[in-house]
Amino acid sequence: MHPPPRLEEIRQAHERIRPHIHRTPVLTSALLDRESGARLFFKCENFQKAGAFKSRGACNAVFSLSAAEAARGVATHSSGNHAAALARAAALRGISAHIVMPQNASAPKRQSVAGFGGQIVLCEPTLAARESTCAEVIARTGATLIHPYNDDRIIAGQATAAVEFLEEVPDLDVVITPVGGGGLLSGTAIAAKSLRPGIRVLGAEPLQADDAAESLRAGRIVDKPARTIADGLRTLLGDRTFPIIQANVDGIATASEDGIVAAMRRLWEVLKILVEPSSAVPSAVIREHPELFAGQRVGIILSGGNVDLDALPW
Amino acid sequence: MHPPPRLEEIRQAHERIRPHIHRTPVLTSALLDRESGARLFFKCENFQKAGAFKSRGACNAVFSLSAAEAARGVATHSSGNHAAALARAAALRGISAHIVMPQNASAPKRQSVAGFGGQIVLCEPTLAARESTCAEVIARTGATLIHPYNDDRIIAGQATAAVEFLEEVPDLDVVITPVGGGGLLSGTAIAAKSLRPGIRVLGAEPLQADDAAESLRAGRIVDKPARTIADGLRTLLGDRTFPIIQANVDGIATASEDGIVAAMRRLWEVLKILVEPSSAVPSAVIREHPELFAGQRVGIILSGGNVDLDALPW
Repeated sequence: MHPPPRLEEIRQAHERIRPHIHRTPVLTSALLDRESGARLFFKCENFQKAGAFKSRGACNAVFSLSAAEAARGVATHSSGNHAAALARAAALRGISAHIVMPQNASAPKRQSVAGFGGQIVLCEPTLAARESTCAEVIARTGATLIHPYNDDRIIAGQATAAVEFLEEVPDLDVVITPVGGGGLLSGTAIAAKSLRPGIRVLGAEPLQADDAAESLRAGRIVDKPARTIADGLRTLLGDRTFPIIQANVDGIATASEDGIVAAMRRLWEVLKILVEPSSAVPSAVIREHPELFAGQRVGIILSGGNVDLDALPW
Repeated sequence: MHPPPRLEEIRQAHERIRPHIHRTPVLTSALLDRESGARLFFKCENFQKAGAFKSRGACNAVFSLSAAEAARGVATHSSGNHAAALARAAALRGISAHIVMPQNASAPKRQSVAGFGGQIVLCEPTLAARESTCAEVIARTGATLIHPYNDDRIIAGQATAAVEFLEEVPDLDVVITPVGGGGLLSGTAIAAKSLRPGIRVLGAEPLQADDAAESLRAGRIVDKPARTIADGLRTLLGDRTFPIIQANVDGIATASEDGIVAAMRRLWEVLKILVEPSSAVPSAVIREHPELFAGQRVGIILSGGNVDLDALPW
């Protein structure tokens, strides 16, 4: 297999996507520092375009395509933030985005994709149906598949958040991100270890969706059921992301469901920002494993802010 | 009566409070611009210390006191953001803050004041009881009364938000703030008209608490019942704030209760930030009276972000 993205590709990605993304702010809170016993820095990708870091990878993938590839459009199967981000990126380049979504995807998620001009293709709510429908769309249109995470262009794009983070706060001791499919975590690990070799990089996942922790222990991608409120983290690692995580990540820590909800609420109350449940998992890890962070300068990537205000978990 | 604060006093206030407050960011949204037909700039005082612009005035008042005055502490009667901001400011100066609150003040509001070290004095939930209890506390302690808005130190402090706003976005056509007691609006009007004479300054208030609009029409402070979700705006103008508003404000526009809730929700969804109902009133005014803002560069002061997450209005 070809080698993973290096800092050079990440910097190219950053130049490529710069006109199309926000350089998101870093927030701090003396109160949350006191509560955690650490010094916390929050990189606010909830303020990112389309409400999540996914716009970084999606823009990098879409703007990496040749003109001939681009003319045939892009496709993916996703009901989450990647779908909206890809639809937006495609619209910016003036090309089609075919988004395969399960019939039971929520109205807000459909509206978000449609609002960015994505062409929704509904299918049965099974992984098999999603993959076969997506393959059909690609066969029919010639569109390029843009996988949500198992794609080097996506990994390099997601990594740009860590580049900005370390430009703004160069002396972080540790950086922690949520881990679902591993696009954000693997990209963050490459960027952070390249820019600051001594930094620790941790993944955070729900105890009830701890496939990444188990995969690291087993030395292979483990498939297990995920039952968590953190809907962005229900996916498994991919064969591009897993080896990068094995080579560059110092550990995966887990948090309880109650802890995720409590951490999410605390972020809302103190920082006055909306973050989605997946984004609160690193903060929940810090609350439940304070010994891992005591006295350290901790960078947390708040991955997204797309929540259903009619279905808050408290 | 002595003249109102001038730009010079506002600049002095800004220097005085600078170590104790945030310089809050200004957010924009292409989506909200499209929806409004105007170019909107949001000055995020919901990110201010203690969660509201009130920290500006409270810090200016507390740090304006002589050493002898300060030694006897400060007092106020309030159950809202001013109470927490004053408690915090007093703690920063290392002096006592006596906060008279009605017995039925909510637990979060008491906790906020207590969390900043304020000494809570409970009283019956009537204005008469609040004023007499506050007078007793002052007679007993010699504390200085810091009124929530009808005080030139408070007005000058609140005005500093507009100074920062125009430093960051110098070419605003109009600036709009909520109006309750008028501290923020009067200070904003002095600062904005001094720095940019041609600017329009508007107040925004709930239709169901339109005492400020009626006061301007009547030429005197009108007392009328306020029944609004915007709990920060249920107060009347004062004899310091009203003449400033008469002289410097171009108009007061109103919004419906449904419009306030809808605008609040839209700000949460799009900007991914928490704002309290009072903060959403200017946005509601823009939605309900778009002709006042069409094509203009509109500065909106988002006054605060202290909301009860267990009692959201949707």
